[in-house]
Amino acid sequence: MKKLRSIYKNKVKMPPGTLPDEVNGPKQVKYTVIEYSSDHASMNEYHNLDDCLPDLHSSSVSWINIDGIHSSAVVESLGKEIELHPLVMEDIMNPLHRPKFEDFDNHIFVIFKIMRFDKKNINFSEEQVSLILGENYVITFQEYKGDIFDPVRKRIDQGQGRIRRMKSDYLFCSLLDMVIDNYYPILEDLDEVIEEMDEKVHLSSQALPSELYKCQKQVNFLHRSTWPMRDVISDILRSENTLINGKTRLYFKDLNDHILQIIDLADSFRDNVNALMELSIAINGDKLNRIMKFLTLVSTIFIPLSFIAGLYGMNFKNMPELETRYGYYIVLGVMLSVLIGMVMLFKKRKWF
Amino acid sequence: MKKLRSIYKNKVKMPPGTLPDEVNGPKQVKYTVIEYSSDHASMNEYHNLDDCLPDLHSSSVSWINIDGIHSSAVVESLGKEIELHPLVMEDIMNPLHRPKFEDFDNHIFVIFKIMRFDKKNINFSEEQVSLILGENYVITFQEYKGDIFDPVRKRIDQGQGRIRRMKSDYLFCSLLDMVIDNYYPILEDLDEVIEEMDEKVHLSSQALPSELYKCQKQVNFLHRSTWPMRDVISDILRSENTLINGKTRLYFKDLNDHILQIIDLADSFRDNVNALMELSIAINGDKLNRIMKFLTLVSTIFIPLSFIAGLYGMNFKNMPELETRYGYYIVLGVMLSVLIGMVMLFKKRKWF
Amino acid sequence: MKKLRSIYKNKVKMPPGTLPDEVNGPKQVKYTVIEYSSDHASMNEYHNLDDCLPDLHSSSVSWINIDGIHSSAVVESLGKEIELHPLVMEDIMNPLHRPKFEDFDNHIFVIFKIMRFDKKNINFSEEQVSLILGENYVITFQEYKGDIFDPVRKRIDQGQGRIRRMKSDYLFCSLLDMVIDNYYPILEDLDEVIEEMDEKVHLSSQALPSELYKCQKQVNFLHRSTWPMRDVISDILRSENTLINGKTRLYFKDLNDHILQIIDLADSFRDNVNALMELSIAINGDKLNRIMKFLTLVSTIFIPLSFIAGLYGMNFKNMPELETRYGYYIVLGVMLSVLIGMVMLFKKRKWF
Amino acid sequence: MKKLRSIYKNKVKMPPGTLPDEVNGPKQVKYTVIEYSSDHASMNEYHNLDDCLPDLHSSSVSWINIDGIHSSAVVESLGKEIELHPLVMEDIMNPLHRPKFEDFDNHIFVIFKIMRFDKKNINFSEEQVSLILGENYVITFQEYKGDIFDPVRKRIDQGQGRIRRMKSDYLFCSLLDMVIDNYYPILEDLDEVIEEMDEKVHLSSQALPSELYKCQKQVNFLHRSTWPMRDVISDILRSENTLINGKTRLYFKDLNDHILQIIDLADSFRDNVNALMELSIAINGDKLNRIMKFLTLVSTIFIPLSFIAGLYGMNFKNMPELETRYGYYIVLGVMLSVLIGMVMLFKKRKWF
Amino acid sequence: MKKLRSIYKNKVKMPPGTLPDEVNGPKQVKYTVIEYSSDHASMNEYHNLDDCLPDLHSSSVSWINIDGIHSSAVVESLGKEIELHPLVMEDIMNPLHRPKFEDFDNHIFVIFKIMRFDKKNINFSEEQVSLILGENYVITFQEYKGDIFDPVRKRIDQGQGRIRRMKSDYLFCSLLDMVIDNYYPILEDLDEVIEEMDEKVHLSSQALPSELYKCQKQVNFLHRSTWPMRDVISDILRSENTLINGKTRLYFKDLNDHILQIIDLADSFRDNVNALMELSIAINGDKLNRIMKFLTLVSTIFIPLSFIAGLYGMNFKNMPELETRYGYYIVLGVMLSVLIGMVMLFKKRKWF
Repeated sequence: MKKLRSIYKNKVKMPPGTLPDEVNGPKQVKYTVIEYSSDHASMNEYHNLDDCLPDLHSSSVSWINIDGIHSSAVVESLGKEIELHPLVMEDIMNPLHRPKFEDFDNHIFVIFKIMRFDKKNINFSEEQVSLILGENYVITFQEYKGDIFDPVRKRIDQGQGRIRRMKSDYLFCSLLDMVIDNYYPILEDLDEVIEEMDEKVHLSSQALPSELYKCQKQVNFLHRSTWPMRDVISDILRSENTLINGKTRLYFKDLNDHILQIIDLADSFRDNVNALMELSIAINGDKLNRIMKFLTLVSTIFIPLSFIAGLYGMNFKNMPELETRYGYYIVLGVMLSVLIGMVMLFKKRKWF
Repeated sequence: MKKLRSIYKNKVKMPPGTLPDEVNGPKQVKYTVIEYSSDHASMNEYHNLDDCLPDLHSSSVSWINIDGIHSSAVVESLGKEIELHPLVMEDIMNPLHRPKFEDFDNHIFVIFKIMRFDKKNINFSEEQVSLILGENYVITFQEYKGDIFDPVRKRIDQGQGRIRRMKSDYLFCSLLDMVIDNYYPILEDLDEVIEEMDEKVHLSSQALPSELYKCQKQVNFLHRSTWPMRDVISDILRSENTLINGKTRLYFKDLNDHILQIIDLADSFRDNVNALMELSIAINGDKLNRIMKFLTLVSTIFIPLSFIAGLYGMNFKNMPELETRYGYYIVLGVMLSVLIGMVMLFKKRKWF
Repeated sequence: MKKLRSIYKNKVKMPPGTLPDEVNGPKQVKYTVIEYSSDHASMNEYHNLDDCLPDLHSSSVSWINIDGIHSSAVVESLGKEIELHPLVMEDIMNPLHRPKFEDFDNHIFVIFKIMRFDKKNINFSEEQVSLILGENYVITFQEYKGDIFDPVRKRIDQGQGRIRRMKSDYLFCSLLDMVIDNYYPILEDLDEVIEEMDEKVHLSSQALPSELYKCQKQVNFLHRSTWPMRDVISDILRSENTLINGKTRLYFKDLNDHILQIIDLADSFRDNVNALMELSIAINGDKLNRIMKFLTLVSTIFIPLSFIAGLYGMNFKNMPELETRYGYYIVLGVMLSVLIGMVMLFKKRKWF
Repeated sequence: MKKLRSIYKNKVKMPPGTLPDEVNGPKQVKYTVIEYSSDHASMNEYHNLDDCLPDLHSSSVSWINIDGIHSSAVVESLGKEIELHPLVMEDIMNPLHRPKFEDFDNHIFVIFKIMRFDKKNINFSEEQVSLILGENYVITFQEYKGDIFDPVRKRIDQGQGRIRRMKSDYLFCSLLDMVIDNYYPILEDLDEVIEEMDEKVHLSSQALPSELYKCQKQVNFLHRSTWPMRDVISDILRSENTLINGKTRLYFKDLNDHILQIIDLADSFRDNVNALMELSIAINGDKLNRIMKFLTLVSTIFIPLSFIAGLYGMNFKNMPELETRYGYYIVLGVMLSVLIGMVMLFKKRKWF
Repeated sequence: MKKLRSIYKNKVKMPPGTLPDEVNGPKQVKYTVIEYSSDHASMNEYHNLDDCLPDLHSSSVSWINIDGIHSSAVVESLGKEIELHPLVMEDIMNPLHRPKFEDFDNHIFVIFKIMRFDKKNINFSEEQVSLILGENYVITFQEYKGDIFDPVRKRIDQGQGRIRRMKSDYLFCSLLDMVIDNYYPILEDLDEVIEEMDEKVHLSSQALPSELYKCQKQVNFLHRSTWPMRDVISDILRSENTLINGKTRLYFKDLNDHILQIIDLADSFRDNVNALMELSIAINGDKLNRIMKFLTLVSTIFIPLSFIAGLYGMNFKNMPELETRYGYYIVLGVMLSVLIGMVMLFKKRKWF
């Protein structure tokens, strides 16, 4: 949430569509330009926007990946080149934007979230990725340098699959697919974390509630972050923009299936964590019950016996029982009967 | 959830529509081909795809059942033969896919789940079944060899009912009906399990919460797995594909009724298990209350009496009461009054 | 739930539209045929289907009531006569079907539930009633012989109200009205049961949770069984079948109002029972608190005093205090101060 | 709920549209007829329907208010005069009907609820008001004689506002406005009640749960009774009946805003009462914790000390410690160390 | 809620569209008129409505900000000038109105809420702001003099951004943007408050429930107050009024994204506070468990030992054990074994 604070502090007073002067984050920007058609593919890296711009309107498909969204100059000059709306530029530079889909005449703009999961601290973190689909190009913006798109790069490079035979919309879909498929290993990790907690709850309950609470918080976060992605894909499927080809539409439907499955899994995790929380409370209550029963058993047996012993520990001069020969043994007998009576009462009431 | 892990580990990096090289599971594939028209029916088993392919485009209705989805070669060559979309082939081989309906021009593709219930361990397991409906054929893919479709086989073989007089869409509907009707015995078993727990909760509460939690988890799973089937049937009913005949549509409506009833029952089980969880906690709380009341009763009666006894057990030289003749008896009387007073106070406050 | 088991055990393997050979229940079927027009009304009872069939296509309105749905022969021969779809026949004989509405060209088919409430055991039971509306006839199927439709019979017989002046659709509506109005006395009974529990919860909490749980279960059942009826009436109102006259439509809207009110009441009962459950737990917790406070009061006052008494009950030779003249009185004074201090501390912390 | 019982007992057996012979309630009916146009206004009271009927079809706007709906003769003869549907007449006489809107060609029929709140007993009661809007008249039916419409009467009488310049639909809207605005003082009262409880919960928890439960029940009732009114206004806004003028429609939108605000407030009250219930339980638990901690502190400190004292209170002949000179002082020292050790342990574990 | 009471007390009896004679609040009204076109901008302050009215219909864009809505005379004379509907005037003067959007032919009327957050007392307060968009003017009404619109003023004054080049609709959008962006710092403050509580819950639980309850109440308030704003923006986006230009529509979509994000954050806060409440209860229960375990441990160990000591403290004449030589040591041994046995039993049951 620290992120929230640092970014919005300045934003409030700015007109909509204003690019922030400065966003915290690495200033160094790296451009990776991949250009391919069915018969060739080239990949180049630049550190200067002007070097990679000429590639943009060529006849083959160009994919420009930009690592680093923290420099407004870069976004602005690129935006001018491909006629981005100022609000889109603002969204690209706002790393806290919700996943969204915006349909312009000559390009489609999508914001998605790359999720990371720190299994040790049970903590999710999001990275924003913005994608622009044009007639013959795709531009991707990542917050930090990452390798999430590497498999697509490899596929283009090696001419694997059908990617080189198809247009930019298929590349666009493949990149979104990478982002979504990235949820699966995270869900596995989360699944393991929850199973570990499950075991812990069943074995002992040492300091568990706060760990479960942490987990609950993260699972809620996951739930909230997966739903908007579904809206984005639905919007794409409903959009009538001709940039997305009829044939590619089926691949977006496939993405939709994946997202629905991810949401299903996220929801089932949420249910399980909540049930675990309840179980943990119930088990604790059960344990307390057993301990209290034992205390009650011991106390109610010995308190009356101690009273009897105390009674004959009094120092009154005139206590005839004390003088009798078998007084002691009679008292011992009485004590024994009290004990047996108590135990039988407990057994009858099924208290232990 | 182990399944989840093993499958998605490799998937993440693959392009959409890629068939996995290897899926864990039996590699041995069995083809059962049933061909029938209103006046004849034949059934053959093959272990080789090429042997059964010629049956495919005959004038009568063909039903090819394939046990084993774990070999990509089989799925691929079949897919080529009947022009399946690559994504459909991927879905067939992904045993964790959600129930889905996909409407192509020349075929309809449906994924459903066969549910099994291990009554002893209160554990559900799903098996995936994929169905393809074409003009004059139905192809079914099962994960493992199973007998769930046997009644349909028998009906075709013996010419029972109207199945031989109707087209492939009716066969398709009958097969889905088998999968759905298969839920009823499972719901019965689950019902018995819940009733047993109900009895246990009412009789005693020995270690129950974790069993109830298990049940809760499974009932949630059932709830989540029945809903998507309803969407599939709704989609079929809304579809305008001519492969499904107007007359058969009524049978799909019947399926819809069954699914709604199953969902109703699953929801009622869920409500009941949740209510049982609450009841179990309430009963435990009640029990604790009764035990604590007893402890309080015994303690508050005897602690003051013990104090009095202790008082006269002190060894002070100068304690005039100890010397008096009736001191002991007076103290006994005081003790008795304290006891009676306490009991009356308890009775008045309705504490026992 | 026993019902569930006995019926579905055989169903699973049957093709859709198959009538079960045998359904548990009375085999004896009674036919009551009422025929009326604006100027006459006749009522006859038969034990043989063939005797009552000729009445069917006469110019006046015929109402055939059939008590007993357990014989497939009867349903089948009737079905042939009036051209029922096989699935409708199956639904009629399936006493566990959900309330449903099916719109055919020449008839309308509705399944409703007659609810009964065993006030003593807090237990609902459902009976299924199926209604078929044709051009000039209504056919009703009841599971058991019942008198729920008697008021309508009387109205026809005595020419009360507008029923004899109107067509079969008004009769159809009147019969559904009977089924729905039958919920009111049940809701009253349930209301009384809940109010009794309310009083019990406020007075004492003897073994209440399990009774409340029972009530909760039943109220959930009521909730689930009223919703589908609403869908049925909505479907009727939306249907464009000419069998239902524009003038009668207003009476169906009236039915809709009644169902909405019943659902409202059922929901309010559900809220109340849930709130009662919570209240009962809260009251129990409160009681425990008060008891524990008393125990703590008594214990914390007397335990230190007993310790002091025990201290001077030690038998050390050299204990100078024991020899002093006023030692005993000083100790008594100390004890009194401890007691007063404790009570004041309790008062200050508002613990009693 | 008593009302429910008395009314539906007889209803069940009646055909729809039948007026009950007798409804419990005052039989004395009072008619108040106000007739006005832009330049004049007259008001008359009658005890006889025939006296006020002639006013009905005059060219100016007539408002007939009828106090008392318990006589079927009155409703019936009025109904005949202005051609009411029998079901409308039945609804007018059924004081438990849901708020509803019915659109006829020549009149509009609305049922609303006047809410009253008994602040002392935290109890809501509803009174039904039915309104009929015709071309140039409005007829209102109230269960009991009431003054809720007095401000409108005054406005007509004194020519205040725009009411005399406008048609009957504006009068109709003003009357509904009176009913809705009547909720505001009730919400204020309820707000005060909840704030009082809030304070009580924070100060002490004396017997609170059952009061909160009562409040919860009433707030649920309020929630359930406000929603249908919203549906009614929405229906009016959607209706295309020409009786409601385009200009007046804006006033109905205003009503809609008010109802939405009332629903918002009612929902917020519901949330607050539920949160209060939880808070009260949490505070109680907290209090119990503190009391138990104190008990534990006192017990665990003095029980070991008492044991040591008891040890040296034994009467064995051969107990060498008893004979030593400083034995007593050493034991006192040991006791002191135990006490200090215990207190330190408690401090360390932050138990008090 | 005090506000609620004072305002609605008088309202109930008034006809719709009546301006209240007197609303509590500052009577002093300040008019700030800003007039600008692409090449100039002027700003003037007036204390008299007549002085600023002439500016209204000039060819450039005029923005009249009115601080103080408590004088009906002002609202009325302004309303006449720009032909406001009486209901709009009433809404402007009702500081408790829900956020709303009303679409008239020649102007658009919007009510929004400026939220303030008192971080110390965890308390939200709302201020109402009404906006009217006309052909070439925007009029804003604020309850109190505020600086929320200052950034827009500065932008106009300095010709920053695109505001001076665009029409009144863009100004309108910018002002709504100010109100919405104002939520971000509030959410940050709330976030800090919740994090503080989170820490407190984890460290200790001193008197926390009532603070959490307060927070819960405020978070619910926030949730309820953000939803209607979303409806308003949706309504604007759906509206076909030509006052809002196609180009500006994109800026409203941007507003929509912001509101959705704010709602997301508010919901996540709500989930977190609720989870914290549960965690706090769970932690408390845990603590109680640990304390009770300790009490049980100490009690069950020493109570039997004390009994044994008490036994040999009895003063019976004939107690042979007392005379034996090693009796005392044997008893000490027995005590030690009991202690060790108890501790081992506890260890085995994992009670500490």
